[in-house]
This record gives sequence, structure tokens and C-alpha cells, in this order.
Amino acid sequence: MATIRVKGMHASLVRDGALDEVAVEEPLEVRVGGRALSVTMRTPGHDEELALGFLYGEDLIDADPARAVGPSPGLELNRVDVAGPLLRDPGERHFYTSSSCGVCGKGAIEQVTVATPRATPGPRVARPLLAGLPQRLRQPAFERTGGVHAAGLFTAEGEPVCVREDVGRHNAMDKLVGRALLDGRLPLHGMLVCVSGRLSFELVQKAARAGAPVLVGVSAPTSLAVTLADDRGMTLCGFARGDRVNVYTGPERVV
Amino acid sequence: MATIRVKGMHASLVRDGALDEVAVEEPLEVRVGGRALSVTMRTPGHDEELALGFLYGEDLIDADPARAVGPSPGLELNRVDVAGPLLRDPGERHFYTSSSCGVCGKGAIEQVTVATPRATPGPRVARPLLAGLPQRLRQPAFERTGGVHAAGLFTAEGEPVCVREDVGRHNAMDKLVGRALLDGRLPLHGMLVCVSGRLSFELVQKAARAGAPVLVGVSAPTSLAVTLADDRGMTLCGFARGDRVNVYTGPERVV
Repeated sequence: MATIRVKGMHASLVRDGALDEVAVEEPLEVRVGGRALSVTMRTPGHDEELALGFLYGEDLIDADPARAVGPSPGLELNRVDVAGPLLRDPGERHFYTSSSCGVCGKGAIEQVTVATPRATPGPRVARPLLAGLPQRLRQPAFERTGGVHAAGLFTAEGEPVCVREDVGRHNAMDKLVGRALLDGRLPLHGMLVCVSGRLSFELVQKAARAGAPVLVGVSAPTSLAVTLADDRGMTLCGFARGDRVNVYTGPERVV
Repeated sequence: MATIRVKGMHASLVRDGALDEVAVEEPLEVRVGGRALSVTMRTPGHDEELALGFLYGEDLIDADPARAVGPSPGLELNRVDVAGPLLRDPGERHFYTSSSCGVCGKGAIEQVTVATPRATPGPRVARPLLAGLPQRLRQPAFERTGGVHAAGLFTAEGEPVCVREDVGRHNAMDKLVGRALLDGRLPLHGMLVCVSGRLSFELVQKAARAGAPVLVGVSAPTSLAVTLADDRGMTLCGFARGDRVNVYTGPERVV
């Protein structure tokens, strides 16, 4: 194997005698007020969004862009320093996240869940629009490498607002929420979120925390994902494959 | 939505007016000597294997089945208590893992990596065998739910030794390694490991730590996965789709 050459989200290498590309995965350290809080394996790019989205999902910062971002004195390669203070003390423990980790930093089973609001009523969305939402996820990095997940934010009419890609599906969602936070869009009332992969408990929790009433996935939900979506009054759709979609919870929003 | 009924690895629910099944996802607390060390979101079943494989992958226990397992005084629902002592002090911090988390518990970027041995020479494997390995992954839970990952251990001739499924691909790998540990099979010299999903840094690290010289995946590797496999002298294969397979590192084992 020749040396890997990293260039943004892609890296090139010689494979089977020809040039090929893979998705970049590198660790990112998230610091708050100079203190190391988490390390996540992610695809470089939109690191500040990732840090803010992660912290918001953990209920450690609120949705005020000015307060949340603040100065980033330690911003450098593979490190983001977010200004404090946090909404609450994360305690003595560190948070650790990986390319698809969402429950990191919880010290016991009862601490797995983050407090999330109940979804607000609406919108009402046509079933074919939900089924076709993944096709509206522009995924340039995936097209080059086949190795990244995507998360997209859409209006109730299916207009794309933002798409983020990452080797970790939770990171893609964190970046999406972080971008929405910076744009003053939180909570995501009346909007649709679509992800390229499976629907885990953590992804539903992140969407719930961001106030999104509708979460659509290309693949299967887990039992706990369905349970949480049902409890929070969300509409959870899986196996969205263009011509069909499974509606697991909140069918009142689907027309 | 009707109540979800959990039964082993599957849960049944009423979806769109008909009975459907999803993969079960529940938290598991791993305790060592009575002390909580990690919480992972996993599919119930083979929990002891999961705990042992995780601890082995983190270089916290050795490969001696008798020493590693010991008595499990706290074995109960969603909790596994592994007998100590550990090989080293995990420090003050807790380890946290999710359904696909592999770098949990590392407090800084330089701590992301676990010490892993270099792969031993051999075996030599025919390329079509590697390309077809995923088809030999028996996945009963996936067939019912479409929502679980699988990891399989094979001989150099492609004979299946063990397959484990889980909503988290890292968990499936941990269970596989934990089973091998209990069976006294570690290190996995001369054997093949195949996983159903993408090839992340953490999956390569777990395979390297277990001594497997060949890792095959159905989907794409990341840049760090390729780098680590190359550094450890492993053969890393991606996009194994029956008729073809990409060989990213260690082509000397492929004939």
C-alpha cells in the first residue's frame, strides 16, 4: 500500500494497483473552557458544528448561538475549544464519543437518557414525500468513498435546508444540529430530519432534543428507538426506499 | 403504536396495522469486581462474551479464560459483573460504549489507540473465498429485523467457527472475541474475521488486538482503518460483494 494522502473529507491511496479514495476518519478532541471533555472519531470538517451539536444533544448547552459558541481560543487541528460555561456540571467523568456513539458519558444505566421535550403537533406530510426523502440527501463524500453517513434537515415540504456527512452517523446528526444552532433554527419544530443509516436510540434522542417532530431513516429502527419516539410523540419512519416507507410511530402526521 | 413486546433479540409491534419485528436495543452495564466500568447499548444475549471481548479489546484482561471470567456475582438483567483484577488500572474515568463505539474511555487523542501486536504471517487465501465470505455469515436476527450487524470468525478455508449479531457492529465483534476467549482460541492466528458493515479504525483495532491477520468487510474502510491495518501487517478487505472484493492492505495473503 502506498501512503494515504488526506485531503479534506477524502483520502487517496493505491489499491489493487489503481488509485482509490476512502473517507477520512480522525479523532477530534472537544474541550470546554480549556478542559478536555470528549474524543470522537469523525470525518474532519464542520468540527465546531459537531462540538456544539454534541454538547446540545447532551443538554450541556442551550440553543443560544451567541452564548454557545463564544470565543474558541484553542481552535486547532483535531481540537475544538468551546467557550463555557456549561448548563450543568458534567461531573468528574469525561465524555467519550466514537464515530457512532451516542450514549457516551453516561455513568450508569439510568443515566443513558437525556431529558427531551415532547414533540409539538404537526406538520402533516404526504407518505410518498417521506418515502423519497433519502433521495434528496445530497451525499458528495459518499459518492466518492461509499464510506460516510449523512443526515439532512428538510422543510415540511421536503426542501433541503442542510446536509452533513461523516463516517459516524451520530456525528452527521450532531453536525446538522450544530449548524441549526448556529443559524438560530433550534428547536426544529415543524421540520423533517432524514438519516442514511439505521435508527438507534441515540439518533432518536438527538432528534428529540433538537425538537424535530419527524425522523426518517433508510434502514431499520431498534426497539428502544421506537419506544422513545413513541414516548416523545415523534413520527419515526424506517426503510424509506423511494417507493415505500414504514411508519413506526406518530402516524397522525402522515397523510 | 401498540406496546413493544421484547422476546430475546427481537421485539414485536404493530406497524401500519400489521405485526412487525425490530431488533432489541437495551443498555448493558459492565461491572468489574463490583465497580461500574461501562454502559453499552446492545442487543441482549451473549452478554458475558460482550463484556469479556470489550475488556480484552481494551487491553484490560488477558486471554486466559479461567482468569478472565471468574465468578460473576452480579450477573442479572442488563448487567454483567466480571471478576477482577484488571491488567491495569483504568483510572478514575469510566468507560462508556454505545452500539457502535470503540474509542470510548479514552481521555485524550493520544489515548485513542490500544497496544496491538503485529499480525503473524499467513494464511494465504484465495481472492474469491474472501469476496464470498459475507455470504457465509448466517444472520438469523438480521433476516427477521433488517436491523443488526454481524461479525463472523472463519478458518483459513472459509469454514464458519462462530457468528454473533448485535445492533452495534462493535458489539458483534466484541461478542465474537469474547466467545473466542472463552473457547481458548485467542490469539486468532491464521483465521479470518468478517463483518457486515463498514470498517472503522476501532474494528480494525479490535481485530488486531485479537490477533486476526485478515479482516473482511461488506462495506468501505476509513482512512484510519487502512492506516492501522497497514501498520499492523494485516490484510484488510472491503466491499466484499460475492463476485469481487477490494484488498486495501496485506495483499501478500491473497492468491
